[in-house]
Amino acid sequence: MIGNKTLAVPGPTNLPPRVARAMAVPLEDHRAPDMGEFIVPLLQDLKKIFRTETGHVLVFPGSGSGGWEAALRNTLREGDRVLGASFGQFSMLWVEMCCQLRLNVTNIDCRWGEATPVDAYRRALEDDKSHAIKAVLVCQNETATGVTSDVAAIRAILDDLGHPALLFVDGVSSIASIEFDMDGWGVDVAVAGSQKGFMMPTGLAIVGVSAKCMQLIAARSLRRGDTDIGYGYWDFAAMLNANKSGYFPYTPAMTLMRGLRESTDMLLEEGLNNVFDRHFRLAEGVRRAVAAWGLRPCAIDPATVSDTVTAILVPEGSDANDVIKAAYRRYGVSLGGGLGAVAGKVFRIGHLGWLNETMVLQALGGAELAMCDAGLAFAPGSGVGAAISYFNAQKPANLLAAE
Amino acid sequence: MIGNKTLAVPGPTNLPPRVARAMAVPLEDHRAPDMGEFIVPLLQDLKKIFRTETGHVLVFPGSGSGGWEAALRNTLREGDRVLGASFGQFSMLWVEMCCQLRLNVTNIDCRWGEATPVDAYRRALEDDKSHAIKAVLVCQNETATGVTSDVAAIRAILDDLGHPALLFVDGVSSIASIEFDMDGWGVDVAVAGSQKGFMMPTGLAIVGVSAKCMQLIAARSLRRGDTDIGYGYWDFAAMLNANKSGYFPYTPAMTLMRGLRESTDMLLEEGLNNVFDRHFRLAEGVRRAVAAWGLRPCAIDPATVSDTVTAILVPEGSDANDVIKAAYRRYGVSLGGGLGAVAGKVFRIGHLGWLNETMVLQALGGAELAMCDAGLAFAPGSGVGAAISYFNAQKPANLLAAE
Amino acid sequence: MIGNKTLAVPGPTNLPPRVARAMAVPLEDHRAPDMGEFIVPLLQDLKKIFRTETGHVLVFPGSGSGGWEAALRNTLREGDRVLGASFGQFSMLWVEMCCQLRLNVTNIDCRWGEATPVDAYRRALEDDKSHAIKAVLVCQNETATGVTSDVAAIRAILDDLGHPALLFVDGVSSIASIEFDMDGWGVDVAVAGSQKGFMMPTGLAIVGVSAKCMQLIAARSLRRGDTDIGYGYWDFAAMLNANKSGYFPYTPAMTLMRGLRESTDMLLEEGLNNVFDRHFRLAEGVRRAVAAWGLRPCAIDPATVSDTVTAILVPEGSDANDVIKAAYRRYGVSLGGGLGAVAGKVFRIGHLGWLNETMVLQALGGAELAMCDAGLAFAPGSGVGAAISYFNAQKPANLLAAE
Amino acid sequence: MIGNKTLAVPGPTNLPPRVARAMAVPLEDHRAPDMGEFIVPLLQDLKKIFRTETGHVLVFPGSGSGGWEAALRNTLREGDRVLGASFGQFSMLWVEMCCQLRLNVTNIDCRWGEATPVDAYRRALEDDKSHAIKAVLVCQNETATGVTSDVAAIRAILDDLGHPALLFVDGVSSIASIEFDMDGWGVDVAVAGSQKGFMMPTGLAIVGVSAKCMQLIAARSLRRGDTDIGYGYWDFAAMLNANKSGYFPYTPAMTLMRGLRESTDMLLEEGLNNVFDRHFRLAEGVRRAVAAWGLRPCAIDPATVSDTVTAILVPEGSDANDVIKAAYRRYGVSLGGGLGAVAGKVFRIGHLGWLNETMVLQALGGAELAMCDAGLAFAPGSGVGAAISYFNAQKPANLLAAE
Repeated sequence: MIGNKTLAVPGPTNLPPRVARAMAVPLEDHRAPDMGEFIVPLLQDLKKIFRTETGHVLVFPGSGSGGWEAALRNTLREGDRVLGASFGQFSMLWVEMCCQLRLNVTNIDCRWGEATPVDAYRRALEDDKSHAIKAVLVCQNETATGVTSDVAAIRAILDDLGHPALLFVDGVSSIASIEFDMDGWGVDVAVAGSQKGFMMPTGLAIVGVSAKCMQLIAARSLRRGDTDIGYGYWDFAAMLNANKSGYFPYTPAMTLMRGLRESTDMLLEEGLNNVFDRHFRLAEGVRRAVAAWGLRPCAIDPATVSDTVTAILVPEGSDANDVIKAAYRRYGVSLGGGLGAVAGKVFRIGHLGWLNETMVLQALGGAELAMCDAGLAFAPGSGVGAAISYFNAQKPANLLAAE
Repeated sequence: MIGNKTLAVPGPTNLPPRVARAMAVPLEDHRAPDMGEFIVPLLQDLKKIFRTETGHVLVFPGSGSGGWEAALRNTLREGDRVLGASFGQFSMLWVEMCCQLRLNVTNIDCRWGEATPVDAYRRALEDDKSHAIKAVLVCQNETATGVTSDVAAIRAILDDLGHPALLFVDGVSSIASIEFDMDGWGVDVAVAGSQKGFMMPTGLAIVGVSAKCMQLIAARSLRRGDTDIGYGYWDFAAMLNANKSGYFPYTPAMTLMRGLRESTDMLLEEGLNNVFDRHFRLAEGVRRAVAAWGLRPCAIDPATVSDTVTAILVPEGSDANDVIKAAYRRYGVSLGGGLGAVAGKVFRIGHLGWLNETMVLQALGGAELAMCDAGLAFAPGSGVGAAISYFNAQKPANLLAAE
Repeated sequence: MIGNKTLAVPGPTNLPPRVARAMAVPLEDHRAPDMGEFIVPLLQDLKKIFRTETGHVLVFPGSGSGGWEAALRNTLREGDRVLGASFGQFSMLWVEMCCQLRLNVTNIDCRWGEATPVDAYRRALEDDKSHAIKAVLVCQNETATGVTSDVAAIRAILDDLGHPALLFVDGVSSIASIEFDMDGWGVDVAVAGSQKGFMMPTGLAIVGVSAKCMQLIAARSLRRGDTDIGYGYWDFAAMLNANKSGYFPYTPAMTLMRGLRESTDMLLEEGLNNVFDRHFRLAEGVRRAVAAWGLRPCAIDPATVSDTVTAILVPEGSDANDVIKAAYRRYGVSLGGGLGAVAGKVFRIGHLGWLNETMVLQALGGAELAMCDAGLAFAPGSGVGAAISYFNAQKPANLLAAE
Repeated sequence: MIGNKTLAVPGPTNLPPRVARAMAVPLEDHRAPDMGEFIVPLLQDLKKIFRTETGHVLVFPGSGSGGWEAALRNTLREGDRVLGASFGQFSMLWVEMCCQLRLNVTNIDCRWGEATPVDAYRRALEDDKSHAIKAVLVCQNETATGVTSDVAAIRAILDDLGHPALLFVDGVSSIASIEFDMDGWGVDVAVAGSQKGFMMPTGLAIVGVSAKCMQLIAARSLRRGDTDIGYGYWDFAAMLNANKSGYFPYTPAMTLMRGLRESTDMLLEEGLNNVFDRHFRLAEGVRRAVAAWGLRPCAIDPATVSDTVTAILVPEGSDANDVIKAAYRRYGVSLGGGLGAVAGKVFRIGHLGWLNETMVLQALGGAELAMCDAGLAFAPGSGVGAAISYFNAQKPANLLAAE
């Protein structure tokens, strides 16, 4: 393959040169006397990204799935009831993990392309007079279908009903890319990964934990005889305790921590609201392109389309995998494939992280080349042109200021 | 701090430029159609490092402690009996993790500086006529005290007694540095980390799993009603299954995998026996230096001194932390501190991974500078000189051939 | 600026990650005993890129302009007559350098956009019965106007007339990108730079020197009393002599040499003819885009359009600098500006080096965004679409094979 | 070669990770609209390193030898008289270059190991009543013999005699490492290279030019008919003119410029006087080691020993190349070889740039290993020990403050 590859999957995202440089460091002793001077402010700044003042952010060497597990292991006991919904590959897998860890899951099966079913959640919580439900799962951004759920609405229900269940959010492909407000929404555990909005390599599970959650964990330890589901590696309390002075219960992935420092700086420098606006703008460009191609997104309700990934339905009779394969093999463009129930039916364009207009145009151009090869009927250039026209018509203030 | 820092801790080790370059890659799609062409041979070659043909090597985003947990969660059920020993910080922590995961641990407490107590293990296993002990833990190289245990001897006891317990080995600071023979020693789970003999950043738990172990896991799934301790993130079966075609159950840390490919190549190019010989030679240079300083190692039995780290006892009345602090703050030399029971009593010099004679001399020189500052009585240059004399007297064949 | 910058100038080109990695090495001693093992084969392989078997390739720390000077200083004496032509910024500057070095230049002034005037050269050489003209200059690819000249035609004239003048070629933006045949065309000095077809940072002047040229230099040293123009730093004979064993007359830029090894490997792996075909194909995509925009190239004769850079005339009344500034400031796209006589009249898209279809589409997309901002009338997407259609219609065999 | 190589030559020096990272950037357009914002302050800050307020610093893609040539070509005419001295490889080569460029050189031949002969210079200048001598050359630090000359003394002579000759200083291995005061010493052209005190890869000739020199150049251009020796690539006036707005007469080596920005920052952050003190301290450690080995430096007058490189005489009957070869081939240590008249008689330890105590100890340890192999009689550890004792006895304030 000659020339740069184009990464248009919904994570890993493109690696900013600044972050690459920040990680190009000699290895270091994580027990160095001055390590706290680096770690403590980093963890503090991560709280700004999660928008929490009362909670904590913990960073584990691991992948986002580890964050899912951390949420469950630290707070629940075997047999505890959990409310979840399956409307895509990742929301489904989290529910499956609950089953595997022998939690008692109330799973609401939805059509893939729907969002977290707010009304169904309300009904389930209303019915739960005994407060048997200990935790409610929300996948804020279902990466497989490009659908964003309304976390605030779930919080409102819980508040409305006075239901004490913990609120767990899978924010892997949303946090640091689209609006997320941990304190405002009363999220108890929020799971992010380094390879999405944080613009980093995979390897860190970044987990927000509320004060309420930590209190519950502290109380739990008093009744250790109970059959909890064992926390081990993902132990929030041990991590938080070691973090206080800037250290860790076991060897941290220091190289990635150096990258995380840089990417956190970059997010705060740009300003979270500007980050969110940029993601909306770039996503909207992609959506205009999709419409110009005569295709439609997998998301059923237009109000739920995701600003970090667009899953695009190919016409009946076409195989989305033909597009994906041609894009990868011929043009070096990595598009996201359809997973599980939508395999072969959708291809996905990720648009999150370190991204700007021309990078989106490159991905769209690559998709058009591949769509030609796969025999899809559309006017070459129409998608790119629609995105250009949108970008031209809707210039943000900071772009205009860049004279 | 002007000038290079010297990393003389027992991990992370020094990062070879080759490995750094191998990781300086654009991020990539771990679901790319051709990913299997990269992953499958890598996992195959890792088996050569572990010296297993019948077993498997699995790589998890995580830290070595995750490997400990993986061993336990995949194979044991709540209340299962485990035999372990505590003779240093890391052997002790693994035992503590067993307790936390509600296993029933027979722990043999030893003096720090001793190795795994072979005779006590024999007695415990002899007494276990009912084969209640399901797993035996051996910390091959206790990093906190610089002591190497005899894994083969434990295997011999199990064989001798016809005891079916699984044999779990913490090889975090031994595998890829000193002799390790997974098949030869009948090890069932062997835990390594990327930041030691593999000469990489922290971030990968590299775990060898025997065929016997996988069979046991396969059998287990038939009786899911049982109260196992939940495997989740560390699920060997799910990992092995996805690995067959070169993929993963969740996002792998691809950047580190690229580094691991390179470091595995480097180890195989050097030849494992040459790697082991080099570690012995460099370690012996350090030991000669320690003797020349008039100090002695923490390891009680000279036959058990480790070739990857030397823990050095400071004289009564001196504080090892004074040496460590001066080394770090004044000379940029990271020495290992005394952990737990030996805090303040020892400082440690790591000598593993990407290392040669002059790097050892630099670490020794830095230690001498710091020992001066800490007021230890010794002849400056004596340690370095003893190492030079040893290196000069004992030239390996490949050094002589390098003309 | 968020997101990657797009480099669409005719050099420096994009840096391949492989080359970046090859240069990410510790600094090294250029007098190391084994340096010859690296340098000698590298210089040998560079001859393949220049397509010379009888000549030599010399590498100087410096920039392409240094190569121009090297050609003149090593071979000519003050007052020697040189034949050149000015039809763009760079052809003009080389002629000016001849004047500055007190050579006696016959300069043929052409319209910018023309190529080397073959007929005028023939007449000048025919008129030179006394063979006063010692050297003939040809700028193979005029980077300022995107025009390629016919070097072979000039050689044919010299042969035809039996004229002994040396043939000097500025191949800075052509060698390693479009056809160049040093031996076949009888080129005596050929000048390249690292930052164009070699896909490297700026910093190396790479100069091909014919056997005839070296013989002439050897003969010259016999009559040192003569007033040559002093060769000093650029001394071909001293360089060639030191190179024989793999060393240099002064400190070489070793880091860049490591990169040059890698880029040379990449060119030879792809195959020079494939490299040339790729450049034609990508250039043609750009030309289709330009036509779709309703614009035309600066090159007057369509047969002379360059495959490494397209200079695009903006309509009367528009300022090309508006396009360039908007592209750079708003979208991070570096387009080439109009230089000298065509300032404000053209913007340039470079398309050479480490480049593929989607990178061209990104540059075109960025240009379209900027053309919108600059108020140029065109249909957004039309250029990108034309390129996509062309790329789709004209698939090379190796792309089709990439299944 | 396993393990890091040790670079103990007097340039290239070790590359600081900060500088490596600063150069790990995408390639960029040197004609970008905002380039001046980067270049202008950089050139301004370089003046602080040269300690000139009235002069200028110019940066050419090239090597230090190019700087020598630049000094000559810009200021002198064919046949102009130049006063120089040969007391080592590099002082000699500069004199030879003057001859090659047909200058009229008064060369004072000295024993290798001597410094610039101040008295002989005084006599020559006194005798030159007609002021035929247009330039005086001083090699401030003769890298081949480890000898520092007294530039201020030469300036004092010129002032004393009211002699108008230009003062040219080869500061390649001194500037940014040991005291250099361009304005204070009235230096007219000062030549540095990137790969020494600037801690960078080779590839930049960094040249200080006095206001007096630029005035002379400006005057010269009025009488262009004269036979100057042609300035071309190294044209100070063209460079200075383009630099005013932050641009260059030809493509600059931007990647190296990014590194130069970082290394300049590092020098200014440390403080030049601290840089000089550090070099003295580290050099003195090496000198103590040499004395402990029973060897002596090549520098004849102890007052002239260099703080950037120590050339060490081996005993009669020994071959210094045996030390150098063993060091390189067996231990990966690059020592400097003896050049020209001292080949085989000396080996050199460079101690400049990015260097601290333990790096010196590593080089000394490597030298000791190689001296053992070469059969030199000395007590292993004696040199390292002497250095440690010196470093311990003479702690600078900033080291003590590093608690």
